[in-house]
Amino acid sequence: MTQKIMAINAGSSSLKFQLFAMPQEQVLAKGLIERIGHQDAQFTFAYHQQQRRRSLPVADHAQAVQCVLEALLEHGVIQRIEEISAVGHRVAHGGEAFNDSALIDDQALSEIETLGELAPLHNPVNAMGIRAFLTALPHAKAVGVFDTAYHQTMSPDHFLYALPYRYYQEMGIRRYGFHGTSHKYVAQTCADLLGKPLCSLRIISCHLGNGASLCAIQQGRSVNTSMGFTPLAGVAMGTRSGDIDPAILPFVAEKEKRTPSELNQLINSQSGLLGLSGVSNDYRDVEQAASQGNEQARLALAVFANRIRDFIGSYLVQMGGLDVLIFTGGIGENSRSARRSICARLQELGISLDDQRNEANQTFIQQDNASVRIAVINTNEELMIARDVMRVAI
Amino acid sequence: MTQKIMAINAGSSSLKFQLFAMPQEQVLAKGLIERIGHQDAQFTFAYHQQQRRRSLPVADHAQAVQCVLEALLEHGVIQRIEEISAVGHRVAHGGEAFNDSALIDDQALSEIETLGELAPLHNPVNAMGIRAFLTALPHAKAVGVFDTAYHQTMSPDHFLYALPYRYYQEMGIRRYGFHGTSHKYVAQTCADLLGKPLCSLRIISCHLGNGASLCAIQQGRSVNTSMGFTPLAGVAMGTRSGDIDPAILPFVAEKEKRTPSELNQLINSQSGLLGLSGVSNDYRDVEQAASQGNEQARLALAVFANRIRDFIGSYLVQMGGLDVLIFTGGIGENSRSARRSICARLQELGISLDDQRNEANQTFIQQDNASVRIAVINTNEELMIARDVMRVAI
Repeated sequence: MTQKIMAINAGSSSLKFQLFAMPQEQVLAKGLIERIGHQDAQFTFAYHQQQRRRSLPVADHAQAVQCVLEALLEHGVIQRIEEISAVGHRVAHGGEAFNDSALIDDQALSEIETLGELAPLHNPVNAMGIRAFLTALPHAKAVGVFDTAYHQTMSPDHFLYALPYRYYQEMGIRRYGFHGTSHKYVAQTCADLLGKPLCSLRIISCHLGNGASLCAIQQGRSVNTSMGFTPLAGVAMGTRSGDIDPAILPFVAEKEKRTPSELNQLINSQSGLLGLSGVSNDYRDVEQAASQGNEQARLALAVFANRIRDFIGSYLVQMGGLDVLIFTGGIGENSRSARRSICARLQELGISLDDQRNEANQTFIQQDNASVRIAVINTNEELMIARDVMRVAI
Repeated sequence: MTQKIMAINAGSSSLKFQLFAMPQEQVLAKGLIERIGHQDAQFTFAYHQQQRRRSLPVADHAQAVQCVLEALLEHGVIQRIEEISAVGHRVAHGGEAFNDSALIDDQALSEIETLGELAPLHNPVNAMGIRAFLTALPHAKAVGVFDTAYHQTMSPDHFLYALPYRYYQEMGIRRYGFHGTSHKYVAQTCADLLGKPLCSLRIISCHLGNGASLCAIQQGRSVNTSMGFTPLAGVAMGTRSGDIDPAILPFVAEKEKRTPSELNQLINSQSGLLGLSGVSNDYRDVEQAASQGNEQARLALAVFANRIRDFIGSYLVQMGGLDVLIFTGGIGENSRSARRSICARLQELGISLDDQRNEANQTFIQQDNASVRIAVINTNEELMIARDVMRVAI
């Protein structure tokens, strides 16, 4: 029987939604409310190839949920709100409490709020979204889908830092990794496209967007990932530094009299492509500047590609080889030159890009004789959420 | 003509020396003064297979230099101090000013002092050692041999961090790398042993001691290295964390109200093998604890080996392959199990350790059919200093 499943991504002032008919995986409607808390919130609503956009006052997330439900009714996408049988919520941090998507009861909701310690900008907002839907749709099951859960299969020697052990025990400081829903989705999709069991493939998934992370997938499970305790770690990103010598932070703190929160600001919001290029956090802008001879922009792109190469090398060695390299995320799915630049650094390892296939943005872009497949897979976290809801709650 | 060349390593309360006859590379005498500034400083002096040890008051580095010179005269190693034609000084930080060992004049000495900004614990002391010898041996040339100089061949896309560019321009924040003298020495020695030109080999040198760093060497030059702005970065070490998610530092700073200098203390002196194992900073102690079933100790060893594997993978990809993997430093030269544990993580890449050769601590310990040679080379920074003095000053 067809189920109507909602996938929700709640931000501090936004609510993104998609309503699926499952298991057909058909999108019935989708949209976004931005500027929640303002008189001129923006509501974008799309269904049946139509898109509506309007400005309206939206006081809080509860009211945003009402707007979404009313629009679904008004446009005849649903006749009664009871038709929505479950809601899947993207939750940033599942800590060690959640190693899979989970049905949300009072205890789980309180866990998510406790984990706000580790993700103060996201978990409280995610919890707010869950509460708003539980109130508006008391009949519908709620499922949490955690960015971290997929990486809970990492072994302790891969998730522990060489810090005093009590920082792990008492404060939960360890590598968690993020983008798990995306890595999981593209790995499974790629295996399906190849007609091979996921567990037979050694995969490196490169989710490259404004945030970027790599994931090593072996026997269908995440065995390592580049983001860490926070989504700052790993490769250089739009505005995030990625890994740097940690001792730079106390040096800068003393030199410039910076507080911890200013340091966070520096490495999270002023660094990465933006900081090094001085141009923009957007890969396309930096690329354009580089093509016009901007040397800092050229360097920023090279640093970006080098760090990705470094992780690919590490993961290739960790897994004892590689079957598929996947590109996804805004940059990974669209930037031919980013893929070209990264793959050019991987030659002599059986990773050979076919330039024409790459330019044509085909799904598989390796050369015919290459031992490693290179795939471009559009990620779809909303669909993965809907699938997990079906698996966990229906 | 034989030259008598002194190699000096000055610490904050110590002075290590070795007197060479060059170019024969013969050690005439060597020794160490510890606890400088105390009434009971310890003077160890070795020559002709004899070793003397005594306690005496040594007020400062100038007086320590006098002690050394008097001992050399007293034991007949030299007849007159004028026989010492040049002194090579290990200097921690050469910044971007020194890309090779250099003759020290007033300007160079003042550069070294200015670079104390970047190495406050080391450069001022190194400069003090240089001044003490310039005063005691006004006829002898002084040469600075910098831990960083060998890595000045790294390209900007490898030495820049994805931080705002002004941190590089205004504060010199970039990857410098350290242990350069050691990496250079073992790479050259290994090429000599193989009877091949250094420039024909792709080498990864693993200097593993209480401090540890890896260096990728291509065409005879350092193309990448794991230490960074400071010697904290890279792999986990005796008491240093190596790379961690940098955002952990502001998190801990706020949580535990730590100052920048306390954070430095945490990641430099309380982390690494010591922090994670809770046992010791000494690899041998941690190994013993692990063999007795201590789980944290076992994890610390695994994290240590994993991080080294990660860098080997990165550098192997960067260089498009690998000809020689070198182990050096206290752990690298002596710990069979450390080498075994690291190489076990590198299988299927042509890196195959021969267990018997490894146990016998032979110089080359790969299997006969392996495509990558694995070498154990005893480092000798003092000899490298003496050689550089000959090349630069004589």
